[in-house]
Amino acid sequence: MVLITESKLRSMINKGIPNPFVVREGDKLTPAAADFLRDRRIPIQNMRLVKKDKVSAGSRESLQIPVGVSNRHVHLAPEDVSALFGEGYSLMPLRELSQPGQFAAKEQVTLVGPKGIIQNVRILGPARGETQVEISNTDGYQLGIHPPTRLSGWIEDTPGLTLVGPKGCISLQKGVIVAKRHIHISDIDAQKYSLKDGDCLYLQSEGERQIIFADVMVRIHPNYRLDFHVDMDEGNAAGLKTGDMVKLIGKKGVFFSNREG
Amino acid sequence: MVLITESKLRSMINKGIPNPFVVREGDKLTPAAADFLRDRRIPIQNMRLVKKDKVSAGSRESLQIPVGVSNRHVHLAPEDVSALFGEGYSLMPLRELSQPGQFAAKEQVTLVGPKGIIQNVRILGPARGETQVEISNTDGYQLGIHPPTRLSGWIEDTPGLTLVGPKGCISLQKGVIVAKRHIHISDIDAQKYSLKDGDCLYLQSEGERQIIFADVMVRIHPNYRLDFHVDMDEGNAAGLKTGDMVKLIGKKGVFFSNREG
Repeated sequence: MVLITESKLRSMINKGIPNPFVVREGDKLTPAAADFLRDRRIPIQNMRLVKKDKVSAGSRESLQIPVGVSNRHVHLAPEDVSALFGEGYSLMPLRELSQPGQFAAKEQVTLVGPKGIIQNVRILGPARGETQVEISNTDGYQLGIHPPTRLSGWIEDTPGLTLVGPKGCISLQKGVIVAKRHIHISDIDAQKYSLKDGDCLYLQSEGERQIIFADVMVRIHPNYRLDFHVDMDEGNAAGLKTGDMVKLIGKKGVFFSNREG
Repeated sequence: MVLITESKLRSMINKGIPNPFVVREGDKLTPAAADFLRDRRIPIQNMRLVKKDKVSAGSRESLQIPVGVSNRHVHLAPEDVSALFGEGYSLMPLRELSQPGQFAAKEQVTLVGPKGIIQNVRILGPARGETQVEISNTDGYQLGIHPPTRLSGWIEDTPGLTLVGPKGCISLQKGVIVAKRHIHISDIDAQKYSLKDGDCLYLQSEGERQIIFADVMVRIHPNYRLDFHVDMDEGNAAGLKTGDMVKLIGKKGVFFSNREG
């Protein structure tokens, strides 16, 4: 049993606080520590679920994958950080994301489309090569644009949008996508579960709105942490929240067995 | 080949215009007729898709079901029609819905929750026993309420909401749900495809966000027209629009065969 205090969590900020934050059975969080995590929207995950994964290592059929539900967000190229927030401005980390080195920034912008606007849209850091806006289909109806479903980085032939920040605005000619769902997995885990980069998986959610996601692409990198990325529409349709688990039940168009739903 | 004119469509209003509106190969709609359907948001469906169903009658595995995506809406008890729109007021039909006798009314209300409001929410008619509000999980975040996922009519232990109309307001103590997805099917079709009331089906969507809906309940009634009801979150997550088709691929937790996705 470990007592997790707010000051212990604060001491972890520089190294990065795990997201979700995993606790073992019997561990206790002080009320201040729980508030600290809630304020940063870091979900608390029970160790038992993680153990289940480890026990069944090697069996593809019982791989459980934690879900990350992404709200609309923006990745900015360095020159667009300057245009929106001022020359020489650096994004300020607010909280760590599930993938190492990625963070949600304190900065927000307003999206302005032909039919509507969405305020307070989070910037994710660090700054990257090209500016990219990831929205849901629901957001698209509100803004009046209907971007294709794409993996991150593939922005040819996508619509643009106007972004407004405190120090300026930019009108993108392209770069708005609906994110294609995918899993992040390390090369070691991928080998353990016989998964290859680009494989398409069947992942099953549990609960009152059970769904099988039928074309989940595998992305492998040595630094990746196991994670299933969906957008708000997909999260809400399946009743999933960040930190919930989904189960691998098939690959490349074939279910591992004819199973109970 | 048949020429479908606007005046022909107008002559069908009293009997009810099919939704979706089915055309045979070679049929032509005049531009005014196409506008007439578009204004009423009635999708046009190609007869070939319907034929495919009929050819394969008896084979459960190839049953194709048209999708109806429902936006947020309200069903009103007669006394609540009076409270919101005035004593003795009758709802005015705007367009027919997929199920016989049901219609979208011209009337709209504003939903007021603890955290936000949603304006211009459609009333569906005719008036029924108890007032019920059907919203998506996304709407729930905007309003600040988190109703359970329920089949229509099952409103015990659900949250309330305030409805505001042009002549008054009501504060419901209960009646807000997220609709549980389901299919409507006639008793004749149900027998043909060996489906029973309450069966849980696996339905598969096509397209760039392919999903298998894993717990779709069967509702049977002699007057039902074949239809798969989902809400906006589910439609957007799967990239489905009203009039698209999904495929029956399994029942009661078992897939009909180990298939290509």
